[in-house]
Amino acid sequence: MNIREALKEDWESIWPIFHEIVKAGETYAYDPATTMDQAEKLWIEAPRKSFVFEESGEILGTYYLKTNQAGPGSHVCNCGYMVSSKTRGRGIATTMCEHSQKVALELGYAAMQFNFVASSNEGAVRLWRKLGFETVGRLPKAFNHPEKGLVDALVMYKWLQT
Amino acid sequence: MNIREALKEDWESIWPIFHEIVKAGETYAYDPATTMDQAEKLWIEAPRKSFVFEESGEILGTYYLKTNQAGPGSHVCNCGYMVSSKTRGRGIATTMCEHSQKVALELGYAAMQFNFVASSNEGAVRLWRKLGFETVGRLPKAFNHPEKGLVDALVMYKWLQT
Repeated sequence: MNIREALKEDWESIWPIFHEIVKAGETYAYDPATTMDQAEKLWIEAPRKSFVFEESGEILGTYYLKTNQAGPGSHVCNCGYMVSSKTRGRGIATTMCEHSQKVALELGYAAMQFNFVASSNEGAVRLWRKLGFETVGRLPKAFNHPEKGLVDALVMYKWLQT
Repeated sequence: MNIREALKEDWESIWPIFHEIVKAGETYAYDPATTMDQAEKLWIEAPRKSFVFEESGEILGTYYLKTNQAGPGSHVCNCGYMVSSKTRGRGIATTMCEHSQKVALELGYAAMQFNFVASSNEGAVRLWRKLGFETVGRLPKAFNHPEKGLVDALVMYKWLQT
Protein backbone atom coordinates (compact mmCIF):
# COMPACT_ATOMS: atom_id res chain seq x y z
CA MET A 1 0.00 0.00 0.00
CA ASN A 2 1.35 3.34 -1.04
CA ILE A 3 -0.01 6.85 -1.40
CA ARG A 4 1.98 9.03 -3.76
CA GLU A 5 1.52 12.09 -5.93
CA ALA A 6 -0.31 11.38 -9.18
CA LEU A 7 1.84 11.38 -12.31
CA LYS A 8 0.78 12.37 -15.81
CA GLU A 9 0.78 8.71 -16.83
CA ASP A 10 -1.58 7.73 -14.00
CA TRP A 11 -4.53 9.48 -15.58
CA GLU A 12 -5.57 6.49 -17.68
CA SER A 13 -5.96 4.47 -14.47
CA ILE A 14 -7.63 7.28 -12.51
CA TRP A 15 -10.20 8.13 -15.18
CA PRO A 16 -12.30 4.92 -14.83
CA ILE A 17 -12.67 5.62 -11.10
CA PHE A 18 -13.63 9.25 -11.72
CA HIS A 19 -15.96 8.37 -14.58
CA GLU A 20 -17.86 5.66 -12.73
CA ILE A 21 -18.51 7.93 -9.73
CA VAL A 22 -19.33 11.12 -11.63
CA LYS A 23 -21.55 9.40 -14.21
CA ALA A 24 -23.75 8.13 -11.35
CA GLY A 25 -24.37 11.76 -10.27
CA GLU A 26 -25.00 10.76 -6.67
CA THR A 27 -22.07 12.26 -4.80
CA TYR A 28 -19.95 14.80 -6.70
CA ALA A 29 -20.75 18.24 -8.08
CA TYR A 30 -19.32 17.49 -11.50
CA ASP A 31 -21.35 17.27 -14.69
CA PRO A 32 -22.10 13.53 -15.22
CA ALA A 33 -21.15 14.07 -18.89
CA THR A 34 -17.63 15.34 -18.01
CA THR A 35 -15.17 14.07 -20.62
CA MET A 36 -11.83 12.41 -19.91
CA ASP A 37 -9.94 15.59 -20.87
CA GLN A 38 -12.14 17.89 -18.81
CA ALA A 39 -11.84 15.55 -15.85
CA GLU A 40 -8.04 15.62 -16.04
CA LYS A 41 -8.14 19.41 -15.82
CA LEU A 42 -10.52 19.31 -12.85
CA TRP A 43 -8.88 16.53 -10.88
CA ILE A 44 -5.18 16.82 -11.76
CA GLU A 45 -4.40 20.25 -13.21
CA ALA A 46 -6.59 22.69 -11.27
CA PRO A 47 -5.85 21.40 -7.75
CA ARG A 48 -2.64 22.18 -5.92
CA LYS A 49 -1.79 18.47 -5.60
CA SER A 50 -3.33 15.14 -6.58
CA PHE A 51 -2.53 11.73 -5.13
CA VAL A 52 -3.16 8.08 -5.88
CA PHE A 53 -3.61 5.14 -3.56
CA GLU A 54 -1.76 2.21 -5.08
CA GLU A 55 -1.61 -1.46 -4.18
CA SER A 56 0.43 -4.06 -6.09
CA GLY A 57 0.82 -1.57 -8.93
CA GLU A 58 -2.93 -0.96 -9.21
CA ILE A 59 -4.54 2.42 -8.51
CA LEU A 60 -7.53 1.90 -6.21
CA GLY A 61 -8.17 5.43 -5.03
CA THR A 62 -7.31 9.07 -5.65
CA TYR A 63 -7.65 12.45 -4.03
CA TYR A 64 -6.91 16.10 -4.74
CA LEU A 65 -6.05 18.95 -2.43
CA LYS A 66 -6.54 22.63 -3.23
CA THR A 67 -6.89 26.02 -1.59
CA ASN A 68 -10.59 26.50 -0.93
CA GLN A 69 -10.79 30.30 -1.10
CA ALA A 70 -8.12 32.77 -2.17
CA GLY A 71 -6.78 35.74 -0.20
CA PRO A 72 -8.35 35.99 3.26
CA GLY A 73 -9.59 32.38 2.96
CA SER A 74 -6.36 30.79 1.76
CA HIS A 75 -5.50 29.09 5.07
CA VAL A 76 -8.34 26.60 4.48
CA CYS A 77 -7.96 23.78 1.97
CA ASN A 78 -10.46 21.54 0.24
CA CYS A 79 -10.10 17.88 -0.74
CA GLY A 80 -12.04 15.36 -2.78
CA TYR A 81 -11.58 11.58 -2.54
CA MET A 82 -12.59 8.76 -4.87
CA VAL A 83 -12.30 5.02 -4.35
CA SER A 84 -12.83 2.37 -7.01
CA SER A 85 -16.16 0.55 -6.46
CA LYS A 86 -14.28 -2.78 -6.51
CA THR A 87 -12.47 -1.95 -3.31
CA ARG A 88 -14.89 0.09 -1.22
CA GLY A 89 -15.34 -0.70 2.46
CA ARG A 90 -11.67 -1.46 2.95
CA GLY A 91 -10.80 1.82 4.60
CA ILE A 92 -9.09 3.39 1.61
CA ALA A 93 -11.02 6.66 1.97
CA THR A 94 -10.08 6.84 5.65
CA THR A 95 -6.41 6.26 4.84
CA MET A 96 -6.46 8.90 2.10
CA CYS A 97 -8.28 11.44 4.29
CA GLU A 98 -5.77 10.99 7.12
CA HIS A 99 -2.94 11.32 4.60
CA SER A 100 -4.47 14.50 3.17
CA GLN A 101 -4.69 16.10 6.61
CA LYS A 102 -0.98 15.51 7.12
CA VAL A 103 -0.19 16.94 3.68
CA ALA A 104 -2.42 19.95 4.39
CA LEU A 105 -0.54 20.73 7.59
CA GLU A 106 2.82 20.35 5.83
CA LEU A 107 1.63 22.82 3.20
CA GLY A 108 0.69 25.27 5.94
CA TYR A 109 -3.11 25.02 5.89
CA ALA A 110 -4.94 25.52 9.16
CA ALA A 111 -8.23 23.84 8.30
CA MET A 112 -9.98 21.63 5.75
CA GLN A 113 -13.44 22.16 4.30
CA PHE A 114 -15.77 19.95 2.26
CA ASN A 115 -18.10 22.31 0.42
CA PHE A 116 -20.78 20.07 -0.92
CA VAL A 117 -21.44 16.68 0.70
CA ALA A 118 -24.77 15.23 -0.44
CA SER A 119 -26.76 14.56 2.74
CA SER A 120 -28.00 11.36 1.05
CA ASN A 121 -24.39 10.09 0.99
CA GLU A 122 -24.74 8.80 4.54
CA GLY A 123 -21.62 6.65 4.44
CA ALA A 124 -19.46 9.64 3.61
CA VAL A 125 -21.10 11.89 6.19
CA ARG A 126 -20.56 9.24 8.88
CA LEU A 127 -16.95 8.72 7.82
CA TRP A 128 -16.04 12.41 7.80
CA ARG A 129 -17.65 12.87 11.20
CA LYS A 130 -15.65 9.95 12.56
CA LEU A 131 -12.51 11.59 11.20
CA GLY A 132 -13.25 14.80 13.08
CA PHE A 133 -15.20 16.87 10.56
CA GLU A 134 -18.13 18.86 11.84
CA THR A 135 -21.22 19.75 9.84
CA VAL A 136 -21.08 23.56 9.85
CA GLY A 137 -23.63 24.21 7.12
CA ARG A 138 -26.70 22.71 5.49
CA LEU A 139 -27.67 23.95 2.00
CA PRO A 140 -31.38 23.31 1.50
CA LYS A 141 -32.18 21.25 -1.61
CA ALA A 142 -28.83 22.18 -3.14
CA PHE A 143 -28.04 18.68 -4.44
CA ASN A 144 -30.13 17.18 -7.25
CA HIS A 145 -29.91 13.41 -6.73
CA PRO A 146 -30.83 11.30 -9.78
CA GLU A 147 -33.27 9.15 -7.76
CA LYS A 148 -34.04 11.04 -4.57
CA GLY A 149 -34.49 14.43 -6.22
CA LEU A 150 -33.47 17.60 -4.38
CA VAL A 151 -31.68 16.79 -1.14
CA ASP A 152 -29.70 19.02 1.21
CA ALA A 153 -25.95 19.36 0.81
CA LEU A 154 -23.70 19.66 3.85
CA VAL A 155 -20.65 21.81 4.48
CA MET A 156 -18.17 19.92 6.68
CA TYR A 157 -15.12 21.43 8.34
CA LYS A 158 -12.18 20.48 10.50
CA TRP A 159 -9.63 22.70 12.17
CA LEU A 160 -6.29 20.92 11.71
CA GLN A 161 -3.72 23.03 13.51
CA THR A 162 -3.26 22.53 17.23
CA MET B 1 -29.91 54.61 -13.40
CA ASN B 2 -29.32 51.55 -15.51
CA ILE B 3 -28.10 48.01 -14.93
CA ARG B 4 -26.72 46.34 -18.03
CA GLU B 5 -24.33 43.56 -18.98
CA ALA B 6 -20.68 44.53 -18.71
CA LEU B 7 -18.87 45.12 -21.98
CA LYS B 8 -15.21 44.52 -22.71
CA GLU B 9 -14.59 48.30 -22.68
CA ASP B 10 -16.12 48.68 -19.20
CA TRP B 11 -13.25 46.90 -17.52
CA GLU B 12 -11.15 50.04 -17.12
CA SER B 13 -13.98 51.59 -15.09
CA ILE B 14 -14.74 48.42 -13.12
CA TRP B 15 -11.15 47.74 -12.12
CA PRO B 16 -10.76 50.69 -9.69
CA ILE B 17 -13.86 49.48 -7.80
CA PHE B 18 -12.58 45.88 -7.71
CA HIS B 19 -9.07 46.94 -6.78
CA GLU B 20 -10.08 49.22 -3.91
CA ILE B 21 -12.25 46.53 -2.32
CA VAL B 22 -9.93 43.56 -2.85
CA LYS B 23 -6.79 45.42 -1.77
CA ALA B 24 -8.43 46.12 1.59
CA GLY B 25 -8.83 42.36 2.15
CA GLU B 26 -11.81 42.80 4.42
CA THR B 27 -14.66 41.32 2.43
CA TYR B 28 -13.73 39.23 -0.61
CA ALA B 29 -11.85 35.95 -0.96
CA TYR B 30 -9.52 37.25 -3.63
CA ASP B 31 -5.80 37.73 -3.21
CA PRO B 32 -5.30 41.43 -2.27
CA ALA B 33 -2.44 41.46 -4.81
CA THR B 34 -4.69 40.38 -7.72
CA THR B 35 -3.59 42.20 -10.87
CA MET B 36 -5.87 44.00 -13.31
CA ASP B 37 -5.61 41.15 -15.84
CA GLN B 38 -6.24 38.41 -13.28
CA ALA B 39 -9.20 40.36 -11.94
CA GLU B 40 -10.75 40.62 -15.40
CA LYS B 41 -10.59 36.84 -15.73
CA LEU B 42 -12.15 36.34 -12.29
CA TRP B 43 -14.87 38.98 -12.51
CA ILE B 44 -15.74 39.10 -16.23
CA GLU B 45 -14.52 35.98 -18.03
CA ALA B 46 -15.06 33.13 -15.55
CA PRO B 47 -18.62 34.01 -14.47
CA ARG B 48 -21.64 33.24 -16.61
CA LYS B 49 -22.60 36.93 -16.74
CA SER B 50 -21.32 40.23 -15.37
CA PHE B 51 -23.24 43.48 -15.00
CA VAL B 52 -22.59 47.13 -14.27
CA PHE B 53 -24.69 49.69 -12.47
CA GLU B 54 -24.42 52.93 -14.39
CA GLU B 55 -25.59 56.45 -13.65
CA SER B 56 -25.04 59.43 -15.95
CA GLY B 57 -22.49 57.38 -17.87
CA GLU B 58 -20.48 56.51 -14.75
CA ILE B 59 -20.08 52.96 -13.46
CA LEU B 60 -20.83 52.92 -9.72
CA GLY B 61 -21.30 49.21 -9.11
CA THR B 62 -20.84 45.79 -10.63
CA TYR B 63 -21.85 42.21 -10.04
CA TYR B 64 -21.25 38.75 -11.51
CA LEU B 65 -23.46 35.70 -11.64
CA LYS B 66 -22.23 32.13 -12.03
CA THR B 67 -23.26 28.54 -11.45
CA ASN B 68 -22.12 27.66 -7.95
CA GLN B 69 -21.58 23.91 -8.35
CA ALA B 70 -21.63 21.84 -11.53
CA GLY B 71 -23.76 18.78 -12.26
CA PRO B 72 -26.09 17.92 -9.35
CA GLY B 73 -25.55 21.42 -7.91
CA SER B 74 -26.08 23.42 -11.09
CA HIS B 75 -29.55 24.74 -10.17
CA VAL B 76 -27.94 27.04 -7.57
CA CYS B 77 -26.11 30.18 -8.64
CA ASN B 78 -23.62 32.43 -6.89
CA CYS B 79 -23.22 36.21 -7.15
CA GLY B 80 -20.74 38.81 -5.99
CA TYR B 81 -21.46 42.55 -5.78
CA MET B 82 -19.17 45.55 -5.54
CA VAL B 83 -20.07 49.20 -5.08
CA SER B 84 -17.69 52.13 -5.42
CA SER B 85 -16.83 53.57 -1.99
CA LYS B 86 -17.91 57.02 -3.24
CA THR B 87 -21.51 55.90 -3.55
CA ARG B 88 -22.10 53.45 -0.74
CA GLY B 89 -25.23 53.68 1.36
CA ARG B 90 -27.39 54.69 -1.59
CA GLY B 91 -28.99 51.28 -2.06
CA ILE B 92 -26.97 50.29 -5.11
CA ALA B 93 -26.13 46.85 -3.65
CA THR B 94 -29.82 46.27 -2.91
CA THR B 95 -30.80 47.25 -6.44
CA MET B 96 -28.12 45.00 -7.94
CA CYS B 97 -29.04 42.06 -5.69
CA GLU B 98 -32.72 42.32 -6.63
CA HIS B 99 -31.72 42.56 -10.30
CA SER B 100 -29.51 39.48 -9.98
CA GLN B 101 -32.34 37.43 -8.49
CA LYS B 102 -34.52 38.23 -11.50
CA VAL B 103 -31.70 37.35 -13.90
CA ALA B 104 -31.08 34.10 -12.00
CA LEU B 105 -34.70 33.06 -12.36
CA GLU B 106 -34.69 33.95 -16.07
CA LEU B 107 -31.62 31.76 -16.51
CA GLY B 108 -33.43 28.90 -14.78
CA TYR B 109 -31.69 28.85 -11.40
CA ALA B 110 -33.74 27.76 -8.40
CA ALA B 111 -31.61 29.27 -5.62
CA MET B 112 -28.73 31.65 -4.91
CA GLN B 113 -25.84 31.03 -2.53
CA PHE B 114 -23.15 33.29 -1.07
CA ASN B 115 -20.27 31.00 -0.11
CA PHE B 116 -18.06 33.20 1.97
CA VAL B 117 -19.47 36.26 3.71
CA ALA B 118 -17.08 37.57 6.37
CA SER B 119 -19.07 37.65 9.62
CA SER B 120 -17.28 40.94 10.41
CA ASN B 121 -18.93 42.49 7.35
CA GLU B 122 -22.04 43.27 9.38
CA GLY B 123 -23.56 45.65 6.86
CA ALA B 124 -23.54 42.99 4.16
CA VAL B 125 -24.90 40.29 6.47
CA ARG B 126 -27.75 42.60 7.51
CA LEU B 127 -28.49 43.53 3.90
CA TRP B 128 -28.58 39.96 2.60
CA ARG B 129 -30.82 38.94 5.48
CA LYS B 130 -33.18 41.82 4.67
CA LEU B 131 -33.26 40.63 1.06
CA GLY B 132 -34.34 37.14 2.13
CA PHE B 133 -31.05 35.29 2.47
CA GLU B 134 -30.69 32.91 5.38
CA THR B 135 -27.45 32.04 7.14
CA VAL B 136 -27.19 28.29 6.50
CA GLY B 137 -23.58 27.80 7.48
CA ARG B 138 -20.85 29.24 9.68
CA LEU B 139 -17.23 28.40 8.86
CA PRO B 140 -15.16 28.80 12.02
CA LYS B 141 -12.20 31.16 11.64
CA ALA B 142 -12.27 30.73 7.86
CA PHE B 143 -11.75 34.43 7.05
CA ASN B 144 -8.45 36.11 7.86
CA HIS B 145 -9.33 39.77 8.41
CA PRO B 146 -6.38 42.21 8.17
CA GLU B 147 -7.26 43.86 11.50
CA LYS B 148 -9.58 41.50 13.35
CA GLY B 149 -7.62 38.33 12.55
CA LEU B 150 -9.46 35.04 12.06
CA VAL B 151 -13.22 35.57 11.99
CA ASP B 152 -16.02 33.21 10.97
CA ALA B 153 -17.32 33.24 7.42
CA LEU B 154 -21.01 32.71 6.72
CA VAL B 155 -22.77 30.77 4.00
CA MET B 156 -25.99 32.54 3.01
CA TYR B 157 -28.73 31.06 0.84
CA LYS B 158 -32.04 31.96 -0.71
CA TRP B 159 -34.51 29.75 -2.54
CA LEU B 160 -35.75 31.85 -5.45
CA GLN B 161 -38.35 29.76 -7.22
CA THR B 162 -41.91 29.78 -5.94
